[in-house]
Amino acid sequence: MIRLHVEPSLSAGARVELPADQARYLLTVMRLQTGEAVLLFNGRDGEWRARLAETSKRACVLEVEEQTRAQAGVPDVELVVALVKRAALETIVEKATELGAARVRLVTTRRTNADHTNVARLQAIATEAAEQTERLDVPQILAPEKLERLLDGWDANRQLMFCDEAGDDPQAEWGGAAGRAQPALDALGGNESRSWAILIGPEGGFDPAERARLRELSFVTPVTLGPRILRADTAAISALTLWQAALGDWA
Amino acid sequence: MIRLHVEPSLSAGARVELPADQARYLLTVMRLQTGEAVLLFNGRDGEWRARLAETSKRACVLEVEEQTRAQAGVPDVELVVALVKRAALETIVEKATELGAARVRLVTTRRTNADHTNVARLQAIATEAAEQTERLDVPQILAPEKLERLLDGWDANRQLMFCDEAGDDPQAEWGGAAGRAQPALDALGGNESRSWAILIGPEGGFDPAERARLRELSFVTPVTLGPRILRADTAAISALTLWQAALGDWA
Repeated sequence: MIRLHVEPSLSAGARVELPADQARYLLTVMRLQTGEAVLLFNGRDGEWRARLAETSKRACVLEVEEQTRAQAGVPDVELVVALVKRAALETIVEKATELGAARVRLVTTRRTNADHTNVARLQAIATEAAEQTERLDVPQILAPEKLERLLDGWDANRQLMFCDEAGDDPQAEWGGAAGRAQPALDALGGNESRSWAILIGPEGGFDPAERARLRELSFVTPVTLGPRILRADTAAISALTLWQAALGDWA
Repeated sequence: MIRLHVEPSLSAGARVELPADQARYLLTVMRLQTGEAVLLFNGRDGEWRARLAETSKRACVLEVEEQTRAQAGVPDVELVVALVKRAALETIVEKATELGAARVRLVTTRRTNADHTNVARLQAIATEAAEQTERLDVPQILAPEKLERLLDGWDANRQLMFCDEAGDDPQAEWGGAAGRAQPALDALGGNESRSWAILIGPEGGFDPAERARLRELSFVTPVTLGPRILRADTAAISALTLWQAALGDWA
């Protein structure tokens, strides 16, 4: 059944008028007929079955009938990702939604070229992915900020899993190991923290000063993701998978 | 430094003539000059540094100098994947290469529409991904065969991790649980087998008869990948990640 994310409150008997793009999708693309049912969620009121009650050139109104699922959230893990190329960034947002990230923070780093991106488009990708993956909420996509500023204001109660692609390779240009990066499962195993973030760097990796600072922060856990070089999108998916399996709702 | 997969044997002093597409890439796209170095691997002889020795309209010859890495393989895990849509299948082959799958078997299932695909193109995608991920081998992509026939001839010494998207949902149409599907990490933990395969189904899922047969086979381990619905490409990446972290070379 078609699932749609909507803004209005949902309760039995409520009438929800869809914005033009969703109306067009339902009526023109999916050819929904009056009386047919869809599922609605808004991130607050759970999931509800609703029927197409009224259509006209100007409006598409759904009548809400019955709750099908109670509201449920996702674990408190956010993805902090450098502005990588557009296609990879869109993949990351889509997959982070499927994998249950609570929100996605975009950051610029010393080796990031871009400092802006189309956040509204990324938010739309997250919404569509949430509709398809049966989530009851949509992760918020936060506009880019500088990594250094983000770290300055970091809440130390939130652990940060730092996916360090240079790892502990002795030939890597970053040499001053303040702490050995462990395989992600080993590093996460037994950790009691409930609030986490996962940091994924840009295509060119973090620069040595960034890496040194990250390793010195008390809330940072440096991890490795295997012996092969992963693209940023693969690293984001793998890291979220391991976090969900070790500490999240996959257990 | 540029890395290329080549067919000929590699040893100090050997001269390797590149096929036209690689010659064009080196000379026209990357504008490599005579005397500049690249890295070569062939899946048998490790990785070697070589220099551009000779170029003409007809030939591009590299002179092999010194071995930079000894040959090393990947763990013995293969990905068995249903013929999903082209873009998703190409992503899966690229990511399976990054994540160290030994080979990729394409299968058709009862709910697969297509029964053929461009295997040569998928093999080229795997080769390019291997060049970029610093693998020393390229996973073989095997032409599609029927899942039922593959299972008929299966070597029972190879375990099969069955990613069952219907899982143990009591509302799922497959009801006759011959064994409860566990979270993947729990199911893999402590397993001693060295040879594995991971099975990823088509967009529409497996049909009930396929699911029932899979669950009855002694070499099959049914697993779940969390409470949200994953697309086939996400499921393939997550499953390979968890296998590598639990039993492969990420530990």
